[in-house]
Amino acid sequence: MMRIANIVVEALYLESYRSALKEEIEASVRLEPGVLTLYAVSAKEDPTRFTILEIYADHAAYEAHIKTPHFIKYKSTTLGMVKSLELVDTVPLVPGMKIK
Amino acid sequence: MMRIANIVVEALYLESYRSALKEEIEASVRLEPGVLTLYAVSAKEDPTRFTILEIYADHAAYEAHIKTPHFIKYKSTTLGMVKSLELVDTVPLVPGMKIK
Repeated sequence: MMRIANIVVEALYLESYRSALKEEIEASVRLEPGVLTLYAVSAKEDPTRFTILEIYADHAAYEAHIKTPHFIKYKSTTLGMVKSLELVDTVPLVPGMKIK
Repeated sequence: MMRIANIVVEALYLESYRSALKEEIEASVRLEPGVLTLYAVSAKEDPTRFTILEIYADHAAYEAHIKTPHFIKYKSTTLGMVKSLELVDTVPLVPGMKIK
């Protein structure tokens, strides 16, 4: 199960948002074997624009992920910082692709 | 060096485009140590919308990549198939992130 999250945050909260997202991602990848990656990038020319490539082992891993304390903390902390959130369910072109 | 490519292709050419992109990605990742990943996904609800997370070891690796025969073949083959192409230079939030 995978998707792309396109997120724009309020400039005022950029540093708080970055630190909350970083903490959430590091905890998820470390503690959850079913979270295969949460690869987050921000645009060089507009650091308030984030894209996250989210890959989960299966749907159950995703369901477990959104019930973890670290995800709930991230979601509640950042709710007021996010200007827009677009979630796009995706399929990989080359299954099993990694990062060297 | 990394970026996100957002690509929309003409529906008529979808299968040709998919196969050209797949061939290009597989060759790049296999033959070029400096291409760290080309992670391509398409939207479930609109398979003509592609997003590619491109990660290169450095700028020289990227410059070498766009001069390879497989990239030039892909680019020339697909030029007329692409409706829009947006390239967004990005920075990673968590450097060194992998895919399990």
